[in-house]
Amino acid sequence: MGNEFLNIMNPEDVKKIISTLPFKKKVEKVAIENAYQRVLSENIYATINLPPFKRAAMDGYAVKSKDTFRASEDKPASLKLLEVVMAGEVPQNKVEEGTCIEVSTGAPIPEGADAVIMIEFAEKKDEDILILESVALGANIANEGSDVKKGELLLSEGEFITPDKIGVLSAIGLQKIPVYVQPQVAVISTGNELIKAEEKLEYGKIYDINSYTVSNSVKSCGCQPIHSEIVKDDYESLKNKIKEFEDADIIITSGGTSAGAGDVLRIVLDEMGKVLVHGIAVKPGKPTIIGLIEDGNEGKIIFGLPGYPVAALMVFHVFIGPFLRKISSLNVGVGENNVMKLKLSRRFRPARGRKQYVLVKIRGNQAHPILKDSGAITSLSEADGYFEVPKNVEILEEGSNVTVIPLLFK
Amino acid sequence: MGNEFLNIMNPEDVKKIISTLPFKKKVEKVAIENAYQRVLSENIYATINLPPFKRAAMDGYAVKSKDTFRASEDKPASLKLLEVVMAGEVPQNKVEEGTCIEVSTGAPIPEGADAVIMIEFAEKKDEDILILESVALGANIANEGSDVKKGELLLSEGEFITPDKIGVLSAIGLQKIPVYVQPQVAVISTGNELIKAEEKLEYGKIYDINSYTVSNSVKSCGCQPIHSEIVKDDYESLKNKIKEFEDADIIITSGGTSAGAGDVLRIVLDEMGKVLVHGIAVKPGKPTIIGLIEDGNEGKIIFGLPGYPVAALMVFHVFIGPFLRKISSLNVGVGENNVMKLKLSRRFRPARGRKQYVLVKIRGNQAHPILKDSGAITSLSEADGYFEVPKNVEILEEGSNVTVIPLLFK
Repeated sequence: MGNEFLNIMNPEDVKKIISTLPFKKKVEKVAIENAYQRVLSENIYATINLPPFKRAAMDGYAVKSKDTFRASEDKPASLKLLEVVMAGEVPQNKVEEGTCIEVSTGAPIPEGADAVIMIEFAEKKDEDILILESVALGANIANEGSDVKKGELLLSEGEFITPDKIGVLSAIGLQKIPVYVQPQVAVISTGNELIKAEEKLEYGKIYDINSYTVSNSVKSCGCQPIHSEIVKDDYESLKNKIKEFEDADIIITSGGTSAGAGDVLRIVLDEMGKVLVHGIAVKPGKPTIIGLIEDGNEGKIIFGLPGYPVAALMVFHVFIGPFLRKISSLNVGVGENNVMKLKLSRRFRPARGRKQYVLVKIRGNQAHPILKDSGAITSLSEADGYFEVPKNVEILEEGSNVTVIPLLFK
Repeated sequence: MGNEFLNIMNPEDVKKIISTLPFKKKVEKVAIENAYQRVLSENIYATINLPPFKRAAMDGYAVKSKDTFRASEDKPASLKLLEVVMAGEVPQNKVEEGTCIEVSTGAPIPEGADAVIMIEFAEKKDEDILILESVALGANIANEGSDVKKGELLLSEGEFITPDKIGVLSAIGLQKIPVYVQPQVAVISTGNELIKAEEKLEYGKIYDINSYTVSNSVKSCGCQPIHSEIVKDDYESLKNKIKEFEDADIIITSGGTSAGAGDVLRIVLDEMGKVLVHGIAVKPGKPTIIGLIEDGNEGKIIFGLPGYPVAALMVFHVFIGPFLRKISSLNVGVGENNVMKLKLSRRFRPARGRKQYVLVKIRGNQAHPILKDSGAITSLSEADGYFEVPKNVEILEEGSNVTVIPLLFK
């Protein structure tokens, strides 16, 4: 077991390596009831016209518009009512000169009619309808295909499915929606000190945090956490668990990556595949591992996060989240566009030799650094975002300008 | 069946009525695995200290700090190694003068030790450890309760549960999380012209849109759609369906609210309870009904939306969504704070006599009105937001300032 990291890399180089990690997107069809917040895997074209037939846009009377010319309250035009057609019904008659058909909104326009006069501008009188206003040709009629023409592109591959897009899919009667399969991610917390929620807390033990925070962060990136377990921090346990999780596309572990006595992930990876990154020049997050293991296909990706909850989530946020969003096609809601220019509330002395991510609370236009160590889970729940300090900066004075990036899982 | 609305109300009065609708929040406990994106129904206090014991913050050697004073690479201090304590283990020895214990990150600090020297500043030599630097009292030790003290408030009632908050809940080993029950909402599309996805499209029929868009909008407001059905637009069908959905807290219908031949919801409400609103002076959305029916308790709320998909979703967005978010306690992510000041791309003549909601696409700093009628579902999928036009405005010139509100279900 080595007492140092093999090859500490700059964060920019690590991002480059991550961007070239192999991943093959898969597609599936889901029922429209389950399509909410999934991502379309194909362009969707209209299979029908919308509306599918010429229909009334208002409740009223389908008429020949020329029969209403010069009609007024004083001198109404009188038209013979042939029938009443509700939405969903089919007209039995044709509108001829001097006649009309009552239509409700959405009813098909009867043959012969070229306008609908709104119900407010007409009056019933015995068998006849008195028309109190003239109506223009085509008024209150929605033509077949006036919203969408058959064959038209409705939605594009890669679009995130929101309620309004579900509206478009349902309008053409599509029941099975082509979407990308959510990448399957197994989550492992390694550590002999870790116990599960509600187990008795004995001296030297702590409740596991990372399996919960990482699983839910995985969800927030459009992937599906399929396993979530605590594993002992030894070679055999970790190796067996990685083999057991063969249905996962990606495995994210935490803990077991540091240079101390408990460093086993690197050894497992050396044997089962290869280590691509071992150590990143950032704080927090230095003891991060990225590797690939052979699984008969293109290789399974393993991310090994630091054991400290804050370090684990920061590395997730900066390096892994963007990758998961890329492979899940969930490119919405990423916070990087919403950076805020703020003033530092106090003097701050960064770590030396590493790029540092500093969690902050935002109050007004000030960024207040949270100075707890990365073992303190509350620093994350209190934080609104973070700023980056390049590795060669010695001090940031109070009032310095900082660019705060919101935390994406908030 | 009336040919006019009973009492068209101003949108502001309707919002007031909605804000007084009765709703009793219920609470439940869910497994932490299912707590993501729910809302806490209680304050959460720390039941333990965090960390729960004094622990090593780094891999290294637990020492008496005074044993390291003046130690340097040239003149290292030599300490006898008593044992190795990994995270999760319990030290068997006490650190006495001249001795040390190897500890991994997270391991308990042995009795007698008052500092941890990082592994990088020490060397093994036979049975002894050479210390190459002096270390300050308390260095690399996280004290019991240094992050959180037992009894401290960790999270507050009403907080939305994100991955970082799940981290806090898991840190204290909480397995059952107290959350608000998601209000149960039944969704009904009324209309004899409506057919389900993948049914054969006959003349005069259209595929139902609203049951899908409304159900998913309900989800986006933190409520749970529990039924979603198409119902014939007649008195008996609608009344029976409303009775059948007795498990729902709220029923949202669409269609069947207009003044024409198909107006049945008002009649059903008149009989089963009372109509609070029938008609709102807005465009689109005028034929909206709000009512209460007796169900033995405080009454079940019924919202009757217009049948046109765009009108239905706009009324949902402006009037119903904010109410659902209030009763589900999901007060996050509401777009009203993110309004944008933009320039109108063209001259626009609003509807007269009603407040109008105008859907727009945003391009640069320009708002482009979407001029399709409210039967056109694509106008919503193309829209980025909308602006409001007060009812007494006659014309908006090109380049006018408009305040665009983003659509919350996007």
